Amino acid sequence: MIDALEKTLKFNADGLIPAIAQQHDTGEVLMMAWMNRDAIRETLDTGIVCYWTRSRQKLWRKGETSGHVQTLVDFRVDCDGDTLLLLVDQKGVACHTGRHNCFFRSVREGDLETIADVEIDPESMYGDKK
Amino acid sequence: MIDALEKTLKFNADGLIPAIAQQHDTGEVLMMAWMNRDAIRETLDTGIVCYWTRSRQKLWRKGETSGHVQTLVDFRVDCDGDTLLLLVDQKGVACHTGRHNCFFRSVREGDLETIADVEIDPESMYGDKK
Repeated sequence: MIDALEKTLKFNADGLIPAIAQQHDTGEVLMMAWMNRDAIRETLDTGIVCYWTRSRQKLWRKGETSGHVQTLVDFRVDCDGDTLLLLVDQKGVACHTGRHNCFFRSVREGDLETIADVEIDPESMYGDKK
Repeated sequence: MIDALEKTLKFNADGLIPAIAQQHDTGEVLMMAWMNRDAIRETLDTGIVCYWTRSRQKLWRKGETSGHVQTLVDFRVDCDGDTLLLLVDQKGVACHTGRHNCFFRSVREGDLETIADVEIDPESMYGDKK
């Protein structure tokens, strides 16, 4: 990792830092995930966003299965050095539900309402359809 | 807290959930902070965003000192229920450095570059200037 980042970033006790992914041209907030040092290195080296999955405890090359990769446009760090903002170009959809972004539920009139449609059938993204 | 949220949200071991604040009309990502159940309740009840500060371990009514409050426009939840996206109307600036948002450093040509100017002198926001 470049020196300036190594000095600035504050990882949590698990060696992780949250990363917000934002579509670079529309401003749409796509998702939030976590990165460790290796994920950051790979992302900066390849220009394709790689996270760390806490559930599977490994590097998560987003889009490796679905093809819905995120190309890095800008890599930003916040004032405290404990959150990242990745400006990306999202291919396809960001959410595993097949919606364009993960924030598709909203508090409306005292309930949680779904405010975005599924764009791509998740089975066609991950399944073994024949 | 409303039932639908209580059933959906996944708090971490400290009872916290990350919340991204985005300016509702421009799409600018302003900051990321943490909320607990009380912060969420207060935010939904009052319409003014309240976080939990991990360093001071108390409710953080953002803008209480500086006047730079965030009025809630929309309260969104992600697919996993473990991240919030708050669409807000930011008064003044979001960052304690006096910049409009907290993500003012970017990796450019192998270094970390400051890409946004200070808009408001932090001392005038928090200090005891006479």
